[in-house]
Amino acid sequence: MKSYIQHHIDTFKENNRNKGRLLVKCPDQPGIVSAISLYLGEHDANIIESNQYTTDPENGIFFLRMEFECPNLQEKRKKLEKQFLEVAYKFSMEWEINFLYDVKKAAIFVSKELHCLRELLLEWQSGDLMTDVVLVVSNHEECREIVESFNIPFYYIPANKDIRKEVEAKQLQLLKDYEVDLIVLARYMQILTPEFVRAHQAQIINIHHSFLPAFVGANPHKRAFERGVKLIGATAHYVTNDLDEGPIIEQDIIRVDHRDTVEDLKKKGRSVERSVLARGVKWAIEDRLIVHENKTIVL
Amino acid sequence: MKSYIQHHIDTFKENNRNKGRLLVKCPDQPGIVSAISLYLGEHDANIIESNQYTTDPENGIFFLRMEFECPNLQEKRKKLEKQFLEVAYKFSMEWEINFLYDVKKAAIFVSKELHCLRELLLEWQSGDLMTDVVLVVSNHEECREIVESFNIPFYYIPANKDIRKEVEAKQLQLLKDYEVDLIVLARYMQILTPEFVRAHQAQIINIHHSFLPAFVGANPHKRAFERGVKLIGATAHYVTNDLDEGPIIEQDIIRVDHRDTVEDLKKKGRSVERSVLARGVKWAIEDRLIVHENKTIVL
Amino acid sequence: MKSYIQHHIDTFKENNRNKGRLLVKCPDQPGIVSAISLYLGEHDANIIESNQYTTDPENGIFFLRMEFECPNLQEKRKKLEKQFLEVAYKFSMEWEINFLYDVKKAAIFVSKELHCLRELLLEWQSGDLMTDVVLVVSNHEECREIVESFNIPFYYIPANKDIRKEVEAKQLQLLKDYEVDLIVLARYMQILTPEFVRAHQAQIINIHHSFLPAFVGANPHKRAFERGVKLIGATAHYVTNDLDEGPIIEQDIIRVDHRDTVEDLKKKGRSVERSVLARGVKWAIEDRLIVHENKTIVL
Amino acid sequence: MKSYIQHHIDTFKENNRNKGRLLVKCPDQPGIVSAISLYLGEHDANIIESNQYTTDPENGIFFLRMEFECPNLQEKRKKLEKQFLEVAYKFSMEWEINFLYDVKKAAIFVSKELHCLRELLLEWQSGDLMTDVVLVVSNHEECREIVESFNIPFYYIPANKDIRKEVEAKQLQLLKDYEVDLIVLARYMQILTPEFVRAHQAQIINIHHSFLPAFVGANPHKRAFERGVKLIGATAHYVTNDLDEGPIIEQDIIRVDHRDTVEDLKKKGRSVERSVLARGVKWAIEDRLIVHENKTIVL
Repeated sequence: MKSYIQHHIDTFKENNRNKGRLLVKCPDQPGIVSAISLYLGEHDANIIESNQYTTDPENGIFFLRMEFECPNLQEKRKKLEKQFLEVAYKFSMEWEINFLYDVKKAAIFVSKELHCLRELLLEWQSGDLMTDVVLVVSNHEECREIVESFNIPFYYIPANKDIRKEVEAKQLQLLKDYEVDLIVLARYMQILTPEFVRAHQAQIINIHHSFLPAFVGANPHKRAFERGVKLIGATAHYVTNDLDEGPIIEQDIIRVDHRDTVEDLKKKGRSVERSVLARGVKWAIEDRLIVHENKTIVL
Repeated sequence: MKSYIQHHIDTFKENNRNKGRLLVKCPDQPGIVSAISLYLGEHDANIIESNQYTTDPENGIFFLRMEFECPNLQEKRKKLEKQFLEVAYKFSMEWEINFLYDVKKAAIFVSKELHCLRELLLEWQSGDLMTDVVLVVSNHEECREIVESFNIPFYYIPANKDIRKEVEAKQLQLLKDYEVDLIVLARYMQILTPEFVRAHQAQIINIHHSFLPAFVGANPHKRAFERGVKLIGATAHYVTNDLDEGPIIEQDIIRVDHRDTVEDLKKKGRSVERSVLARGVKWAIEDRLIVHENKTIVL
Repeated sequence: MKSYIQHHIDTFKENNRNKGRLLVKCPDQPGIVSAISLYLGEHDANIIESNQYTTDPENGIFFLRMEFECPNLQEKRKKLEKQFLEVAYKFSMEWEINFLYDVKKAAIFVSKELHCLRELLLEWQSGDLMTDVVLVVSNHEECREIVESFNIPFYYIPANKDIRKEVEAKQLQLLKDYEVDLIVLARYMQILTPEFVRAHQAQIINIHHSFLPAFVGANPHKRAFERGVKLIGATAHYVTNDLDEGPIIEQDIIRVDHRDTVEDLKKKGRSVERSVLARGVKWAIEDRLIVHENKTIVL
Repeated sequence: MKSYIQHHIDTFKENNRNKGRLLVKCPDQPGIVSAISLYLGEHDANIIESNQYTTDPENGIFFLRMEFECPNLQEKRKKLEKQFLEVAYKFSMEWEINFLYDVKKAAIFVSKELHCLRELLLEWQSGDLMTDVVLVVSNHEECREIVESFNIPFYYIPANKDIRKEVEAKQLQLLKDYEVDLIVLARYMQILTPEFVRAHQAQIINIHHSFLPAFVGANPHKRAFERGVKLIGATAHYVTNDLDEGPIIEQDIIRVDHRDTVEDLKKKGRSVERSVLARGVKWAIEDRLIVHENKTIVL
């Protein structure tokens, strides 16, 4: 099955070998867009898509995502990055240029509930999630069969709070070996240590099975049932050290009613969880997300 | 303008003079539906719509809403109610029979923000909210003009926490004088005392400008903005003495993003608040709501 | 993987061995519900869920779906069905009693696009689609691997309009051999003959990749793109001999905008197609669908 | 009531006296954004919001909407426009610069169904629709009272196909006298002549009570009922001489089911019609709409 997916990836790389994305964050001031446009023009790059946002009219922060096409981009990569330094310096920018040819490498962490994993693999298989899933890590064996049926390396690493350090050491080594760009917690029911989170700041996406900040913490569906809510939700967010408090990427809800039991809420919740997570991951892959303070700008 | 609305009401009464609704709540046990069907059959009543729900397969509570049509219903009302006592007694029912001919009388309470009031009046005027709005009460003068343009009696009763008792005494007297069935708090920004609430148990509907239980309390939009949520919501609920904790009737959400300021969230919120409240009020008018513990069954 | 799913099915059968569903369609008249309630009472059956609908107050058609629980149902099945004949006769009913223990057998037909197949298998695997998928038929080899990874028998039957008769003969034989209750066309791109359709009336569900009746026929996404619509949809419907004209079961839409290419519309369309089809199939499995003229009553 | 609204408008003008919007449409080519940014920089204008879109990577059409702030804008207006000519000429642009201070003037045309009119007035009154509604025209008297209660000039112009020319002559004169920028057909049930449409190209927004292109033409709700659809919709579109075929601005849907009568579909339809129309009008007022061929770009 891998070969089929590999074909999607190869086609994508070929079709997009001349495309790049510029992400910028800096204090707002006159002249930014004009300087960037000039810079791109000097490299014969054409702007395909451009989105910007400024937090405030006065003393605000400026954010930009530009997708551009540039002849012979692969040959010019280094030069392009080097020459941007001048612009970046002038406007005190945090910035990155990503090349679509460098398909992002993703690791999926999962426990016993597999619906989010399956959704990601389904979208991936259809070519709708343009990433390279390089490994799946789980503290349970439930998903081994499905993961291996996709020819993805599977690592079973049992985990509990007593052995957290050793477990994370193994995981961090794997993430390094596979050069992972993005970690997706697809219903991975273990808490990560601050060390782990720090090592992968803004690269870990989690799915929480409630409409945060309602029902922060454990058993949201049971509590939603008891409160008699008419909608339940799901939240994809970046992981920080404040549990369930990281920057929100995407949220959605599904309608429920008095007939739904806790079990029904879980069942309905699964369908919204998996689509919200898939959307969040897609945006991360497309470089649409910039974190600012405790919020996510989606460009 | 009243005359136009009065025409809607008169037409409705005429078209539905033979229609009634039976609401039942009792311990679940075999034979309930069959006994009710027999009873209705004996009175030549035909079931138009029937919805039921049981909390649990074992030792559950049974809920029923039946709409029926019965020749010469106006003449038979008393007899019908009297003869139901036997069935009700046998199954230990809480119950009521409502006659569509008795169009419910509603009072709307409002403060300075008028979008919910306007929505209710708009729906009412279109004949889509089959109630008789008999008075509007406000602690501000802002809505006088619009209310009086509908020929609805308007009562300006200034309020603050120091004079709460006197204020509520006046309000309670009005509700009594006008024989009000349903009180709608359409962004009425005053807290009601336990006495007031007790006097109108399960007859007071409030709109809360957040997706409860997220952002319980004041300033939900400011807090939603700070948390960076991607959806904001509104909740129509029955008022109890636990602030924002009463049984939820209906909820809905609207999508927001990082570009939205607190002011934008309020603006978007208004559109979802008014439609959620209108839906909740409509269901109350149609006798679709039964409160059970802290939940609302919508039949 | 089959064993895992088999476990779901076995658990379901065990938990629901005493549950049945009664479906009724007959001319509306007084006394129907009461007669059915009495009949169920005589067999010590308790009504768990009941939904009814009447097309018109006068001379209407009455529809009922009742789910009931009855001690020792497996032993009483024949008796139950036999004794219902009297009630059915009196009210000229079309009816059926289904036993949850008899998990429905489904066949999935698919061509080259696999997203709907994958969704169904994903939901099935999670235990959220309580059916027994007994075979998959395709006119292409693309899905063999995934189907066989679920241990489901896969039949590759190449098809084109010249050999339609032979192809359908083979398919009909398979459907008979496997005692299939429900046929799901999960993006099966072949037209079925009237003979095939007649043999499985009201048992074939198709997914159409547009919001019918907009864009009836081929290439709906291309035409939607050209018309500049802001929403695209999907429609699950029963198959009749009028192409794209069968009774609609479920529909949903997804928001698109001017940036979306035809390819993007297809991609977004896939996500709504698969969820709409899964919902339609779920309702069919739960005996919620009754076809009346060219409409589907969902109870 | 006017004075309250006038206050909204005055505040808006004061707060936005230094803001403008630039709209551009031209053949895509390198250097456009950079030239525009330079131009704005030269006038000390700061870009607040910028959205662009290109139809195709090769030989495409480029669209841009930029909102900017510029000190002393009111004094510089003429100069600003004049000096843009050079940029516009170089890139063969169709363009306009709009000043937020020039609040757009709108005329609403309506017949007997008033829900869309009421929604627009409600939003307008809340300050959420920043336009100056300078007159309402109707071929019926139904809305006179409500319109006049807002102190808006009301013109009753009876219409039918025999006197179309005279009617339109009167209307065109009024539109000229009031210097109307935008005409909103809020359920105005008269066909406009090509002459009328030509005179106000891309300035007439209509609401169609179906999800176009489904149910083009008359009685969409009746036909939706007969087809048994599970969703009904509404479409806001620019009026062209092809009935129901003009560029679509916005669409939305509402869920319906088999219980809904034609009357119910109309009732539910009203709620989606009014919100879709209000959204479309809001975007027009905010200069977000650019028509290209038969599509609307929403920036």
